[in-house]
Amino acid sequence: MPRPRLDCDTPSAMQRMIDTFWQLLSERKYRNITVTDIVRKANVNRNSFYYHFNKLDDLAYRAIHDEVNRSPLAQSGGAGKVPDLQHWRKHVGELISTEEERKRTARLTMIVGPNTDPVLYQAFHDNEREALLEVLSREPEDVDPRTDLMMDFIVGGIMGILNRWLHMSETHGSEVLADKDATAIATRVYDLLLENCLPSGKPAGKAGE
Amino acid sequence: MPRPRLDCDTPSAMQRMIDTFWQLLSERKYRNITVTDIVRKANVNRNSFYYHFNKLDDLAYRAIHDEVNRSPLAQSGGAGKVPDLQHWRKHVGELISTEEERKRTARLTMIVGPNTDPVLYQAFHDNEREALLEVLSREPEDVDPRTDLMMDFIVGGIMGILNRWLHMSETHGSEVLADKDATAIATRVYDLLLENCLPSGKPAGKAGE
Repeated sequence: MPRPRLDCDTPSAMQRMIDTFWQLLSERKYRNITVTDIVRKANVNRNSFYYHFNKLDDLAYRAIHDEVNRSPLAQSGGAGKVPDLQHWRKHVGELISTEEERKRTARLTMIVGPNTDPVLYQAFHDNEREALLEVLSREPEDVDPRTDLMMDFIVGGIMGILNRWLHMSETHGSEVLADKDATAIATRVYDLLLENCLPSGKPAGKAGE
Repeated sequence: MPRPRLDCDTPSAMQRMIDTFWQLLSERKYRNITVTDIVRKANVNRNSFYYHFNKLDDLAYRAIHDEVNRSPLAQSGGAGKVPDLQHWRKHVGELISTEEERKRTARLTMIVGPNTDPVLYQAFHDNEREALLEVLSREPEDVDPRTDLMMDFIVGGIMGILNRWLHMSETHGSEVLADKDATAIATRVYDLLLENCLPSGKPAGKAGE
């Protein structure tokens, strides 16, 4: 799939299309969403859609890209500096119970929910993997097989959590997990990243602790 | 889905059907496999199939159940005794490069491969989760939300590894990972189980180290 253009000179039309994508995905299966649905509901010109995207899959990729990269984890790294565990724990503790974070979780659970599609799974996998490698200052093309597998273990695990979270929320409501438990899980996942997926040369043990 | 009967008084017919299931899954999509295909190729009477199973999904569930429970991890626990990390590392080190283990891995990658189906994903998830809980002597109905999510993180992660393993094997051949790396990953996964999913009352820290 060709990457959608990530530079954008009409953010409001783009954002309306992205928001409409999430809204429609909450209502129906991905395969039952059409470009026509998007442009009508977003009140966007059809040409505007095709200016930004070649096809619906590209909008889905972009929407998931944005959601993944809005995460506190993705934003805590960058510029070659890998945030340590204390930094990350504090960051998560501050953010995890905000309305914004809940909205983000709700959107991401749609990727594993009943309306999902292999296209959405793949887009989440690719974006999440890329975001995590960037936080750890690793180059995607320079990852050894063992780190490669651990990275996919972590991304697969995050999907497993989203899937379970969805079922638990449906059964027990959204307050199923205490903030301290959510922080503990998020910390554990990041710990696993630091332990296993740092650039070579960094300590392989309990980095950041 | 009703559970297939796991007691079986005609193991050879049963085993032929299971082997045929894996063979056909290596050749075509799960949805393109029929009960007729199975009984013809396994040389089993149609009545014999329906004596053991209500439908094809039940055979798939049973085949995946057997494969999951043949794993060294599943077999290392039991009788209320949780194997510690040293025990597990030694066990994996001995088994991971055997022909039997390679065959098991090849079968399990079919569950996440191009011929997969949501039914197979779900069967793997349910069986793997059950097997891990049993190794840890945890009752499925007595799992707190935090452990619940960590358990699904681990099962999702194992699926992520299988999926990546499949792609890496296709690109680089089966010898992509050294035995020591495979052992390190298997050990890390078990470590995560011990750290996060033990019955309450057990130490929450680095159990078994």
